[in-house]
Amino acid sequence: MTIAFVGLGAMGTPMATNLVKRQYKVVGSDIRPDAVRAFEAAGGTGSQSAAEAARGADTLIVMTVTSDQAADVLFAKGALDALAPDATVIVMATCAPAAIEAMAQRVEATGRSFIDAPVSGGVAGATGGTLTIMAAAKPDVFDKSKPILAALGSNLFHLGEKPGQGAAMKTVNQLLCGVHIAAAAEGLAFAERAGIDPKVAHDILSGSAASSWMLKARGPRMLDYDDVVTSALDIFVKDLAIVLDAGRAQKMGLPLSAAAHQLFLAASGMGLGRDDDSQVIETYRVLGKKRDA
Amino acid sequence: MTIAFVGLGAMGTPMATNLVKRQYKVVGSDIRPDAVRAFEAAGGTGSQSAAEAARGADTLIVMTVTSDQAADVLFAKGALDALAPDATVIVMATCAPAAIEAMAQRVEATGRSFIDAPVSGGVAGATGGTLTIMAAAKPDVFDKSKPILAALGSNLFHLGEKPGQGAAMKTVNQLLCGVHIAAAAEGLAFAERAGIDPKVAHDILSGSAASSWMLKARGPRMLDYDDVVTSALDIFVKDLAIVLDAGRAQKMGLPLSAAAHQLFLAASGMGLGRDDDSQVIETYRVLGKKRDA
Repeated sequence: MTIAFVGLGAMGTPMATNLVKRQYKVVGSDIRPDAVRAFEAAGGTGSQSAAEAARGADTLIVMTVTSDQAADVLFAKGALDALAPDATVIVMATCAPAAIEAMAQRVEATGRSFIDAPVSGGVAGATGGTLTIMAAAKPDVFDKSKPILAALGSNLFHLGEKPGQGAAMKTVNQLLCGVHIAAAAEGLAFAERAGIDPKVAHDILSGSAASSWMLKARGPRMLDYDDVVTSALDIFVKDLAIVLDAGRAQKMGLPLSAAAHQLFLAASGMGLGRDDDSQVIETYRVLGKKRDA
Repeated sequence: MTIAFVGLGAMGTPMATNLVKRQYKVVGSDIRPDAVRAFEAAGGTGSQSAAEAARGADTLIVMTVTSDQAADVLFAKGALDALAPDATVIVMATCAPAAIEAMAQRVEATGRSFIDAPVSGGVAGATGGTLTIMAAAKPDVFDKSKPILAALGSNLFHLGEKPGQGAAMKTVNQLLCGVHIAAAAEGLAFAERAGIDPKVAHDILSGSAASSWMLKARGPRMLDYDDVVTSALDIFVKDLAIVLDAGRAQKMGLPLSAAAHQLFLAASGMGLGRDDDSQVIETYRVLGKKRDA
């Protein structure tokens, strides 16, 4: 069983490495040669291109940053056609549900199988093999690839058989994550403005009904930024855009997501796109700054 | 030491009863005679009016629903003037910071002391004496009333000496609670629309970075409403209005709070104001309903 793994980024590298540790033969590919060399150092097999990695493989895992990159790997770069005729393509990147549906259709038209399997849990989950995996695929296709997915995540959900359902679930996940980060920023910035010690405010809020996973994770870095980037702010510029695109596709108004997206966009426009996503709080601080007369 | 307690509602009754259990002499008052009789049955002393309850008391605790009611009790109904000359007024109702500042000024002008001490923790916290209390008062005033506050809440914070700082902290708390309930509704309604089993979605979200205290507490009742009202939807119509009024007073834009408030308002307009606050999800469901041709 050979696995091609395309996209050796902050998430992809530890995921591919976990498969190597489980004795799978994994051929890795990335547009950055350094990432490929690092994967070789970790025991994986490197390759020059996505098509080369995919040649004759039984499974192709795609873990690019964007949906466009995933489609590019599969179709323009020829990875799909290079796979074994009965191979399975597992797209784990965060993509819009409609994009996944289109990809699945093109993959299945070649006689190959498709699993829509986005993840949550961040770099820590990718490294520990404890990701949450939100999969949608035909039952037999899902069962066949279950051992591979189980090597990557400890919370494996089979949401349905229609590709796009996994992506929709991940979309809902990102909706809440993004809104909660922006809400934590709104609350803590308001505490600052009202003259309350924001660290005391964070303590109180973290222990009350006002708490969220994101308030606890991002709140301290909103108040005391240490330049550590757990997840870049631009990831939510992208992911909340996916949420809103999915809302448009369903003709569904998502007012909180739309407001949160504007805040991440504004922060990115201030030049903070590569900073930690907690820095969305700067939008509130800048808006509250008194101008010189 | 006599305590007058005005406002024997869902929160006030168990709070006043906890003080009775600690052997304080507590004289209770409420506009509903039934509530006063129930308090008497629990060991408290009833009274005919707020002024009668306050007559000669050393401490007056005000736990009305609204800020206007609190001011009415103190000033129009004469409770303030009935108190002992060196008494302390403790306002625990959720009020706008500016309203608290004005109340404190009028109370202190009579030579009496004022503690701004809103709470969080709901009926469960009120009953168990485990409320979070966000107090602002001069240090000596706070210290003198500390045993009374400690009988009501197990998480007692002294945020500063300026009345209004407690109210501001509570405002931040309600900002996050309200936004998180509305966000949970937006996420779960979107999951429903996308054809994902919303209970599976709730399971996944509750165990991921997307989680919040409110998602766990209100999510199940968004999906399967049992007519139990933990906290009425109109409470957030009121509390998010306080958040937005406080934002206006600070000239601070609070876009997520504003969007969340619109959703609670719309739900209240649909006739759901006395239902559980989880029912804000109905706004999304109604908006998504296909019209008959």
